Amino acid sequence: MTRTFMDAAFVLYDRMTALDMVGPYEMLAPNPEITPHFVAHRRGTVRADQGLELNATTTFDELPGPDLIVVPGSGRWRAVLEQNDALLAWLAAAHPAATWTTSVCTGATLLAKAGLLTGRTATTHWVSREVLGELGAKVSTDRVVVDGDIITAAGVSAGLDMGLALVGTLFDADRAKLLQLMNEYQPEPPYDSGSLEKAPPGVVAFARAYDAETSIRTD
Amino acid sequence: MTRTFMDAAFVLYDRMTALDMVGPYEMLAPNPEITPHFVAHRRGTVRADQGLELNATTTFDELPGPDLIVVPGSGRWRAVLEQNDALLAWLAAAHPAATWTTSVCTGATLLAKAGLLTGRTATTHWVSREVLGELGAKVSTDRVVVDGDIITAAGVSAGLDMGLALVGTLFDADRAKLLQLMNEYQPEPPYDSGSLEKAPPGVVAFARAYDAETSIRTD
Repeated sequence: MTRTFMDAAFVLYDRMTALDMVGPYEMLAPNPEITPHFVAHRRGTVRADQGLELNATTTFDELPGPDLIVVPGSGRWRAVLEQNDALLAWLAAAHPAATWTTSVCTGATLLAKAGLLTGRTATTHWVSREVLGELGAKVSTDRVVVDGDIITAAGVSAGLDMGLALVGTLFDADRAKLLQLMNEYQPEPPYDSGSLEKAPPGVVAFARAYDAETSIRTD
Repeated sequence: MTRTFMDAAFVLYDRMTALDMVGPYEMLAPNPEITPHFVAHRRGTVRADQGLELNATTTFDELPGPDLIVVPGSGRWRAVLEQNDALLAWLAAAHPAATWTTSVCTGATLLAKAGLLTGRTATTHWVSREVLGELGAKVSTDRVVVDGDIITAAGVSAGLDMGLALVGTLFDADRAKLLQLMNEYQPEPPYDSGSLEKAPPGVVAFARAYDAETSIRTD
């Protein structure tokens, strides 16, 4: 068996949602065949949307040809779509040679704006389904969607499911089961409100209003 | 109704597991009553156990009295237990005045070594159950355990469940449901291997051997 080594680009940008990236990272980066890179327009500090600071250690220019690409979303996703031209240009250039290009949450809208999802089926955080459609994708409400060489995941925590599925695809089921066991990923949410269908109507209304106000903020 | 404002200390240290901290952070930090702080012995870069760099922006000395404390675990957890005297001293001093002291994954062994779990019931990543007992805790295999003012969570991804439960306790069920919806936390793991009982025996054996080798590493 030939062991394939892979460069994985975990994309960072200001106001990203940290868990969107960290979920897939915990499933993918421990595999010895994968070299993780934390990539942004510039090296240095990136501030996530809830205040956590992450460090980009590689620039887009330094990693033009990764094998895997993981693009997180943002609570400021409407503003972010207007502010990341370098990221979009890098994505459009890097995607054709990548084995897998993936997104979590509203990261799908960045893939779409970079032209990667035209005519493809994709999922995203529920807040951005309409915009994802306007950007040319066929919108699915599934948690993880594979279309050709692009995998998209729904909101935030869906990156854990996507990362685990990708480990199974890249290696085999036993490897995925190992990562699931090491991350003790046997979820037991104490509430049952993780989707538009399951959350109480008042909670959904509040969440929609919160997103309308937050997604356009540039701070 | 009196609105209570809370300082939350998200503890960082070299070789921590990023998701252990980021899971609770995504549930807790968005609440407007909570001010998140990223606390370590020194300000600056902390390197997580799979290579991600996080930035500590507050020192232990600068935050002696947080209301909430979140302590993550580590894939190098046996080595980490011997290398974090400043963290342990701060934990022992800060815990009595905190409303809630919490851990995720092997972070429980740090709480125990700081003397916080003597005679208390606590959970941890399955790799560290035996050591947690040796350090004086009554070991549970539950995913989230509340004992007095201490909440412990099982391995890595269990921090999402703990964080969500804590939001429900600090505020109310509707707030927790809002955070669950915004994080689209409706997990659909594509495998069913998240515990010692569910993983195949060969996978468990490999995971145990991997931990025996990795947990003592100081790199």
